[in-house]
Amino acid sequence: MGAGQAVPLTQDEAHYLFAVMRLEVGARVALFNGRDGEWTAEVVEAHKKRGVLACVEQAAPQLAPPDLWLIFAPIKKERTDFIVEKATELGCAKVLPVQTEFTNSARIRQDRLQAHAKEAAEQCLGTYVPPVEDLEPLKKLLASWDPARRILWADEALVGPAETLAGLAPGPWAILIGPEGGFSEGERETLRSLDFVTPVSLGPRILRADTAVCAAITLWQSALGDWR
Amino acid sequence: MGAGQAVPLTQDEAHYLFAVMRLEVGARVALFNGRDGEWTAEVVEAHKKRGVLACVEQAAPQLAPPDLWLIFAPIKKERTDFIVEKATELGCAKVLPVQTEFTNSARIRQDRLQAHAKEAAEQCLGTYVPPVEDLEPLKKLLASWDPARRILWADEALVGPAETLAGLAPGPWAILIGPEGGFSEGERETLRSLDFVTPVSLGPRILRADTAVCAAITLWQSALGDWR
Repeated sequence: MGAGQAVPLTQDEAHYLFAVMRLEVGARVALFNGRDGEWTAEVVEAHKKRGVLACVEQAAPQLAPPDLWLIFAPIKKERTDFIVEKATELGCAKVLPVQTEFTNSARIRQDRLQAHAKEAAEQCLGTYVPPVEDLEPLKKLLASWDPARRILWADEALVGPAETLAGLAPGPWAILIGPEGGFSEGERETLRSLDFVTPVSLGPRILRADTAVCAAITLWQSALGDWR
Repeated sequence: MGAGQAVPLTQDEAHYLFAVMRLEVGARVALFNGRDGEWTAEVVEAHKKRGVLACVEQAAPQLAPPDLWLIFAPIKKERTDFIVEKATELGCAKVLPVQTEFTNSARIRQDRLQAHAKEAAEQCLGTYVPPVEDLEPLKKLLASWDPARRILWADEALVGPAETLAGLAPGPWAILIGPEGGFSEGERETLRSLDFVTPVSLGPRILRADTAVCAAITLWQSALGDWR
């Protein structure tokens, strides 16, 4: 984006701004594209089904999250939506849904999850929207994994005092959260055998998958991420 | 509870166990009352609308959370439910909904929130159900607050690097999370003037109230609670 640049609106956007919010020519709105931070823009054309904004100036720089990915097994619809929302808010750079042996769903609505990530960023005045990948089998993902990116595995078998993450090496990481019911014995063996996988405990209580996502990202951000 | 003790079932419980789950006399179930840990019990009478269990033996000791309370301003219905669920899972001893100047709701369904806490404990195999208090004005709560219990205030104006909680004094604590829209200037002044209130930042991104609840409890548990 640049000062003066014209931004044509989609029909939905025009409907929201002019029919729902009743903005008129000259009104100012906040704008972001996921790359250039937050911009102030002005309405220059306002119709029921179309309209144009003009960029005025950058209001805030782009805030990129640290190099943290989230790998998770989709669960029930609303809790899956929730996981994507929380990963966006808490600061993940990418979201990778995986199919595990105990994952019910054979597919996901990637477009819907991506829209959820965008909405979460908007709600929280964020300017970064993590890409949500398509569902991939965990086995396949691990087989082609770049070992330079370490995986923090929230191992539900380790329920007990949480490890401190303070001693972990900085660098690119991914957090791995299993489905309700955890991982199969075969998957657990594979994970235990991989050098780039570090198991951690998330405390003495058993957590739902969506709660584990929030807790693990929080711990990582405060030890290695941009919450320090 | 004690071995051999008879436990009569409510109509709903009998319906669930015998009509839905199709359990018969002799079947075993897990039982908890919030005080005596997890017990194994046996079905001794099974009818469509009533029934009796007999306690067999304790399967797990009571796991009480640390002395951490959550004070929060109710938001939209499902997100309020969610906050109570997460406070239960992540280990709070008590939940206190408060009315702030920017809280829309003048009342809550305390019974429904309490039922949510119970369900969350059941889902996560927990044996402790935090009491959910009735809605109280924040002003009133603070005026009669016992200063021996410190308050960790997630201050949305402090968005930036998160403080480490490692230096905080152990002892009884409460976490305070504001409504969407934050606290009013008057409330902020009051909070800033109280010696028992410590403001903290939850990182560089603005978080929804329910996300802030998860993040703040996680940080407290790993610094001062039973996740260590």
